[in-house]
Amino acid sequence: MTKRKNLLATLLAMPLLAMAGTVKSPNGNIVVNFSVDDSGRPTYEMTYKGQPVVRPSHLGLELARDKHASRGMEETDLIQGFSIVKEKTSTFDETWRPVWGETATIRNHYVEYVATLQQSKEQRTILIRFRVYDDGIGLRYEFPQQKNLNYFLIKEEHTEFSMTGDHTAWWLPGDYDTQEQETQESRLSQIRSRMKEAVNWGNSSVAVFSPTGVQTSLQMKSQDGLYINIHEAACADYATMHLELVDEQTKALTTRLEGSSNAYTPHPSPCASALPKPFTFVSHLTPDATGLKGAMQTPCQTPWRTVMVSDDARDMLSSNLILNLNEPCALDDTSWIHPTKYCGVWWEMIVGKSNWHYTDDYPSIKLDQIDWKKVKPHGRHAANNEKVRRYIDFAAKNGLDQVLVEGWNVGWEDWANMWKRDVFDFVTPYPDFDLKALNDYAHSKGVKLLMHHETSSSTQNYERHLEAAFTLMNQYGYDAVKTGYVGDIIPRGDHHYSQSMNNHYLHVVKEAAKHHIMVNAHEATRPTGLCRTYPNLVGNESARGTEYEAFGGSRPDHTCILPFTRLQGGPMDYTPGIFVTKLSEWSDNTSWARITIAGSLALYLTMYSPLQMAADLPEHYERFDDAFQFIRDVACDWDESIYLEAEPADYITVARKAKGTPNWFIGGKCDEQGHRSVIRLDFLEKGRKYDCTIYADAKDAHYETNPQAYTITKKVVKQGDVLKLAEAPGGGFAVSLIAQ
Amino acid sequence: MTKRKNLLATLLAMPLLAMAGTVKSPNGNIVVNFSVDDSGRPTYEMTYKGQPVVRPSHLGLELARDKHASRGMEETDLIQGFSIVKEKTSTFDETWRPVWGETATIRNHYVEYVATLQQSKEQRTILIRFRVYDDGIGLRYEFPQQKNLNYFLIKEEHTEFSMTGDHTAWWLPGDYDTQEQETQESRLSQIRSRMKEAVNWGNSSVAVFSPTGVQTSLQMKSQDGLYINIHEAACADYATMHLELVDEQTKALTTRLEGSSNAYTPHPSPCASALPKPFTFVSHLTPDATGLKGAMQTPCQTPWRTVMVSDDARDMLSSNLILNLNEPCALDDTSWIHPTKYCGVWWEMIVGKSNWHYTDDYPSIKLDQIDWKKVKPHGRHAANNEKVRRYIDFAAKNGLDQVLVEGWNVGWEDWANMWKRDVFDFVTPYPDFDLKALNDYAHSKGVKLLMHHETSSSTQNYERHLEAAFTLMNQYGYDAVKTGYVGDIIPRGDHHYSQSMNNHYLHVVKEAAKHHIMVNAHEATRPTGLCRTYPNLVGNESARGTEYEAFGGSRPDHTCILPFTRLQGGPMDYTPGIFVTKLSEWSDNTSWARITIAGSLALYLTMYSPLQMAADLPEHYERFDDAFQFIRDVACDWDESIYLEAEPADYITVARKAKGTPNWFIGGKCDEQGHRSVIRLDFLEKGRKYDCTIYADAKDAHYETNPQAYTITKKVVKQGDVLKLAEAPGGGFAVSLIAQ
Repeated sequence: MTKRKNLLATLLAMPLLAMAGTVKSPNGNIVVNFSVDDSGRPTYEMTYKGQPVVRPSHLGLELARDKHASRGMEETDLIQGFSIVKEKTSTFDETWRPVWGETATIRNHYVEYVATLQQSKEQRTILIRFRVYDDGIGLRYEFPQQKNLNYFLIKEEHTEFSMTGDHTAWWLPGDYDTQEQETQESRLSQIRSRMKEAVNWGNSSVAVFSPTGVQTSLQMKSQDGLYINIHEAACADYATMHLELVDEQTKALTTRLEGSSNAYTPHPSPCASALPKPFTFVSHLTPDATGLKGAMQTPCQTPWRTVMVSDDARDMLSSNLILNLNEPCALDDTSWIHPTKYCGVWWEMIVGKSNWHYTDDYPSIKLDQIDWKKVKPHGRHAANNEKVRRYIDFAAKNGLDQVLVEGWNVGWEDWANMWKRDVFDFVTPYPDFDLKALNDYAHSKGVKLLMHHETSSSTQNYERHLEAAFTLMNQYGYDAVKTGYVGDIIPRGDHHYSQSMNNHYLHVVKEAAKHHIMVNAHEATRPTGLCRTYPNLVGNESARGTEYEAFGGSRPDHTCILPFTRLQGGPMDYTPGIFVTKLSEWSDNTSWARITIAGSLALYLTMYSPLQMAADLPEHYERFDDAFQFIRDVACDWDESIYLEAEPADYITVARKAKGTPNWFIGGKCDEQGHRSVIRLDFLEKGRKYDCTIYADAKDAHYETNPQAYTITKKVVKQGDVLKLAEAPGGGFAVSLIAQ
Repeated sequence: MTKRKNLLATLLAMPLLAMAGTVKSPNGNIVVNFSVDDSGRPTYEMTYKGQPVVRPSHLGLELARDKHASRGMEETDLIQGFSIVKEKTSTFDETWRPVWGETATIRNHYVEYVATLQQSKEQRTILIRFRVYDDGIGLRYEFPQQKNLNYFLIKEEHTEFSMTGDHTAWWLPGDYDTQEQETQESRLSQIRSRMKEAVNWGNSSVAVFSPTGVQTSLQMKSQDGLYINIHEAACADYATMHLELVDEQTKALTTRLEGSSNAYTPHPSPCASALPKPFTFVSHLTPDATGLKGAMQTPCQTPWRTVMVSDDARDMLSSNLILNLNEPCALDDTSWIHPTKYCGVWWEMIVGKSNWHYTDDYPSIKLDQIDWKKVKPHGRHAANNEKVRRYIDFAAKNGLDQVLVEGWNVGWEDWANMWKRDVFDFVTPYPDFDLKALNDYAHSKGVKLLMHHETSSSTQNYERHLEAAFTLMNQYGYDAVKTGYVGDIIPRGDHHYSQSMNNHYLHVVKEAAKHHIMVNAHEATRPTGLCRTYPNLVGNESARGTEYEAFGGSRPDHTCILPFTRLQGGPMDYTPGIFVTKLSEWSDNTSWARITIAGSLALYLTMYSPLQMAADLPEHYERFDDAFQFIRDVACDWDESIYLEAEPADYITVARKAKGTPNWFIGGKCDEQGHRSVIRLDFLEKGRKYDCTIYADAKDAHYETNPQAYTITKKVVKQGDVLKLAEAPGGGFAVSLIAQ
């Protein structure tokens, strides 16, 4: 900080001149420069080991003109005319203990720089705060309460991330409503030409907005080997951020993305100055039904905008930057929050062998007009007493904690995409699901049922029933709920990732906490580390999950990308564990999962989550009971995690020490190329012996031609031993190391 | 019905030909003809005593094209291509007892005609149902559940009401968010030229949509002396209907109403045929944030579209058509619902002498960030313990049932029009309002407090807090709530009168009923008789209330129009009783109420409501205690009501018999012209004597120059006696007749 101090000393004599700050991370690898340019626009740049990561990039917010402007709504942009009136630099170093996680403790160590910026004409002050870590930065806008800035509407946030070149990127089409697409791997310059094919137009919620719009977390790799990741942290009561790439074709004209129903206006700088340079990403927030991006009241702040960087891909996976930028735990008592392994009445419905709904007798239903006892069942309703008992027995026998049952409650006959508000009541079971008896049976065997609340995205309806639904859960002994947000948002016009929906998701988590209920939200917005503050948010889907293996399948490298992207913000309920990958073996579904059995076992380690499902059918696990032993054994909460190998979309290898035990587990997962791992067991306790069981792909295993070929090898190992493991195409391995 | 039966008999032999129905009211005065025209458009016309009231007018609905059309959403219009495949006529005659009302019993006597209409190409069936009363008709669309019609989105309803000439109309500008305007009196042909001046652009919620759009209930008078009223009944989970006049200037072009922010597209017939004739009203529903008018699932129906008609203006006021078209009471137990007379801490805040809010220390507040005990009060907070006790004492002394207290709960510092979602919590009192002590004090004196929930139109916030708010009311012994919907609706883009908001208002009423709470909703949509089905909906504002006397005042004829228009759908919480009409006598407010004291007393009879406020300050009533005696005495629930005289915007005289007593009360109210009433007391019980007290305008009384001049005369009267009463300009009279 010496340089900055000298600068400050110089500036003390001329306080009206613009100041500029330079801030270095604790180990000095990352340096951020902040200043305002000639037109008073805040600008930052970022280097890693002296190498540019973010070229000079502008910061600012464009405000909406509102009918209430004359009554106190601000409408002048927070873009330019700023001068730095105060700067403050400080260091923070603290170690905290997550309620659950990849490690028992997390060090939060950063250098912070805060610039106080004033627009002299408008007499307004905002702050821009940087936290500079050794593995990346966070920056956010802060809006103190003040006479001339109390309320404002955001038309758009204009945070720029100017990349230094035509990096390789692993990206998803920017979309207001879904992130269940296959990840695209391309150069930045190829995004525009790849966009149309990147979108799965069959998804009912597609709302892409730009030919160069992409989602975060966005993982990139520069041509000189830097791994760069852009995301956000602590997105609460603010719209989810997308990124819009300025490329050579970007013009300040209104165009329309072919095939999309969304009008698209590129939004380069709202100032008179030229467009940002090509390879610059500009923030693009998710709008509400009126097209606005946010309603703000001071004091408030934006989420953190994050840029992680390293020359080692493993640092992308071990980074705690997103969690660290979130607020500490807001719950006084977290004793009721626990890691959970579960199975469920689910996969056979996804595959199409049985149904969530109960009857085919009605073209549509209204909940208040049907006597379910008199309805004729179609006979394929999965959530019935007999089947659920079978799953409870299976869970009890195999040490699984809970059994998810989807389709237990009335309303599934016509639940999605019909703009139907009163779609579920979340308390009335179908006639063949005995709520009390099944819970009693489960509890008698030491197992809990896991509640399911599909909202059909009718959020007003869900909020109306929320208290009664959670009270019912308490009454019958459920302590976790999987929520779902399939289909278009009601109220109509809103989007899954808007400010109001992000508020809704967090509202549900907070209300659940009052009832000591853990939440696993599917189709909700992508996570940004809020699980640190609300650790009862134990999972999210928010990406293309295992269900897509029944909808045409995902690429073999899919699970080698997700930890770099989707998992940055928090755990994913990926629902792994498909052993019978060719669905036609037991159903009419011709889809198949592009993974080997050993690869499936690896996911319990490489896809970190405190909530892990064994998603396949009990009878399939019984066919491969020796392999299933690993799922019985593996932990889902950890004292320590060491990423041993990693390359985006190629392979990930991680070793983890089970919480409160001396036992280690190792998982390795690779793409369609296969992979050879050499693992030195340096992390084992010195002088201790471990019973080692290796679940590996057989020599001729292959995700397509021979997915069920695996070997199980047992031996005794100690610190310093080396394991050489071959992963088949689309395969992987899993190792358990139980201390003697 | 003979004619129709003959027709039917003829048609039985040729069922594929279009049929047509003719239906007469029980006494034959009203006749409706229904048919489909050459293009298969449903068409009706209506006569009264042989005179045309509604010329041939089309019926139909235009559906929206939806992204989910391929999945079962219907999108072909329900406009043309119909044939009548079945007709049914029946008679209904039933007398029912309202929980509260103008009369002890209500006769529901009509002839019903139902046409089943089929679109053969689309293989869809709808019903159009007419109920023909002696004083008007109701018609509605019904959509049975069927294979090809399960869900649809309404782009617009095209129900036409083709008037026979250039009637005089008493109208309000059509508006999606407010009906707090002065009524305009003009010929239909003058609506367009009067529109701009008719709008009070200062109202924060103005959302006018057309240069010829007007609201319902719309009262008209034809040049040959027919009184015609168009409104709707039983508007539940459907958008509120406005009327758009087709006049000589209507063109099928997109124009913009000067001064309005709403784009306006006239929507004449969506068919290729020409515009409807001039003087035709076409329905215009209130849109949601996306511009759509409704999401429907069969089986369902529209509200009833009503046309009342008579050659006697009094029939407009005594009609029960709107109530009769609503469903019977849906509540099993109504014993807890009761008429209520109340005063309240309200008028002095409206006038500007004191405040709802507590502190001026913050430019804005966030409820979760303020310790109210440490806040510095500004000293003008009205809802304080001392003042509330004063009102409780006053209520107890004068036999008033309840005391409304506005501004009791935290959040009023910055509550409206800032797009602030979390604006109130409805449970936290300001530090100077002792919730428990004040309720205990009130109850010890036989008085209840009346709860106030201003929602600031943040409906999501209100629904989140609703259960806790009602539970608090139960805990402290409140049994009635005044709700408020000031400002723009949150979620943004929605409107006060949309389908979703109408659903919200009714949701609140239903939830309140579960807690045995009566609801009086202000700024909600205009009522359509739903109080029959949910009699705990004891009041609404939904028009320009007494508060406007402090905002510049209303015209003297205002209260002689409202019973013809706003009150058709249900009672209004008009909050009458201003005795000190010149506000400058006791405040800095230069506004004044254009009414005499005797006129104010009359409103307790002419403006029927089971909930009546004595709105002025206790000290003002104490100054005129002899006149206040009438407010102490007057009932607000009735066994019988007789409208003696009426002419829209001129005068209304009504006699009512207090429920469960032999006592009568008479009120007369007139406009700025004054009025002379001659009342024959034929309705009194034969042979019985009555102590008669007459509260009349003094000879020189005048709403502007001498409003407080009144006389009180006492005498004994009997059946057949005649009262001759002179009403001053802007005045009126009130009479109590207490049986000896």
